[in-house]
Amino acid sequence: MQVRYNTSSMGELEYINWLRQRTPADPRVLLGPGDDTAVIRAPAGGSWLVTTDMLLEGSHFRFPQVDAKQVGRKAMAVNLSDIAAMAGKPVAAVASVGLPRSGGQTLAEALYLGMRELADAFDTALVGGDTNSWDGPLVISVTLFGEATGRGPVTRAGAKPGDWLLVTGPLGGSIQGKHLDFAPRVREALALHQLADLHAMIDISDGLAADLKHICDESRCGAVLHAEAIPLSSAARQIRDDRSPLEHALGDGEDFELLFAVSPDEGRKLLQTQPVHGIALTHVGECIAQPGLFLEDGGKRSALKPMGYVHSF
Amino acid sequence: MQVRYNTSSMGELEYINWLRQRTPADPRVLLGPGDDTAVIRAPAGGSWLVTTDMLLEGSHFRFPQVDAKQVGRKAMAVNLSDIAAMAGKPVAAVASVGLPRSGGQTLAEALYLGMRELADAFDTALVGGDTNSWDGPLVISVTLFGEATGRGPVTRAGAKPGDWLLVTGPLGGSIQGKHLDFAPRVREALALHQLADLHAMIDISDGLAADLKHICDESRCGAVLHAEAIPLSSAARQIRDDRSPLEHALGDGEDFELLFAVSPDEGRKLLQTQPVHGIALTHVGECIAQPGLFLEDGGKRSALKPMGYVHSF
Repeated sequence: MQVRYNTSSMGELEYINWLRQRTPADPRVLLGPGDDTAVIRAPAGGSWLVTTDMLLEGSHFRFPQVDAKQVGRKAMAVNLSDIAAMAGKPVAAVASVGLPRSGGQTLAEALYLGMRELADAFDTALVGGDTNSWDGPLVISVTLFGEATGRGPVTRAGAKPGDWLLVTGPLGGSIQGKHLDFAPRVREALALHQLADLHAMIDISDGLAADLKHICDESRCGAVLHAEAIPLSSAARQIRDDRSPLEHALGDGEDFELLFAVSPDEGRKLLQTQPVHGIALTHVGECIAQPGLFLEDGGKRSALKPMGYVHSF
Repeated sequence: MQVRYNTSSMGELEYINWLRQRTPADPRVLLGPGDDTAVIRAPAGGSWLVTTDMLLEGSHFRFPQVDAKQVGRKAMAVNLSDIAAMAGKPVAAVASVGLPRSGGQTLAEALYLGMRELADAFDTALVGGDTNSWDGPLVISVTLFGEATGRGPVTRAGAKPGDWLLVTGPLGGSIQGKHLDFAPRVREALALHQLADLHAMIDISDGLAADLKHICDESRCGAVLHAEAIPLSSAARQIRDDRSPLEHALGDGEDFELLFAVSPDEGRKLLQTQPVHGIALTHVGECIAQPGLFLEDGGKRSALKPMGYVHSF
């Protein structure tokens, strides 16, 4: 999950690098910190995907702009989106919550109903949790386990120069509502994984540019986006502020669409077979050998300035 | 984890019952909410154990009485203790944290080092997490996965009238220090599970009486404890307050010793083969058909009044 940026402090990516340096190799761990989920070798064969996300009152949501059921729904949805980003099947979830002393019972029930709504919609069992009360604001942490399909998980690493970059839906302006009621692209990811050889994938939580940078960092390549190709959501078009709809589509977080890399042949095939589960795919750019992110607009290529959420603390 | 009691609000057990009523049967879920861990059927065979615990600043710990490394250690240890209570093998953990804006980086590193200390000691991989900063106090939630052994997990249900009740160590007064530096009984549980047919087991986090009640509730039996047999910790003996050492041993939480039920024959065998991994086992009572908890003291049996932590919110 994103946190507001604070350039004087450590970034989450720096912290993950710090962790990675200290994490010993372990034959049970197929993929450790730094991707959408961890991948654990199951004792009896196969792989398990594990992801966790915490939502904090006042930072990720505020009452009464949202209600507790929406918070529960979102806490489950962001984790489902991470499983989708690995093209995995969700299996089971646990939730731990810290409840304010006043009204804790009502909150606990509403959170549960919100989580259950999404868990049921995505065939995920809610198997346990830990419920506490304290003098602080509401905090909820959901951990979700999924299983990789026979084709294995799709990580952020694996994109190659020349690969096409596709997204599963229009982007920008999710703060207008989509950040609360988005549908995690679990089924779409599984369908895409069956239809094509996905080289790399991520869910767009930090913003198109920021999440593309995660793919490029892990895949050790650069990328170019085509300004005119990026699908703009109606929310992004309607916002009246100092940023253009394109800037919203590039920089806004929490759209929770998928961004993935495939070979040009596979990309063409997918565009011909779409829609996949009712969603339209859009070819927004390509991976390139040159490091860095670029935007092509009216035939002119320029460096894409960093935007989107920067995780830090 | 325990929370301070608040009798005007819903108890955690009530909440778990509320959840259980709303939890549909699922062939993948071998054991849902209400035991020390959930049990999930692994896709390729075998079972996974899953548990989660959240520690909240000001409720579960206070700075500067503890340091952040101790908090990280404890966050991992309480989860390891839950895996031990199922006689499972820990495999991997994820952690999500909410860090205060000031000093977040130092806290994050110290928490990690505390978690790693225990994770390494118990061969557990730290595979991922979610790091956030906010305006609230420190909160950390660890989720731990383990695997059941070939003999299966040991739940709270399964104790039978006539069973002996044994504990793995002296009890009471953990607030004097043991609640921070206790050793989760993972190896001891695995050894016991190999040596004997464990009918039911729990880790003593709420207190001997309260946790015995959990076993009785799930096993649908009663129990009697023998006052003179209960092993009193030196901390319990040294506390000078209005409660006796025995009351501390019965009521204090966070000893994280194991309480388990075995047949009398198995109990005798275990007492003869102890120590198990250097720890002494003590026979503290029996399960009985009559519902309720009783204390036998000087040949006189009386109802044991409820004590220990009551989870509520």
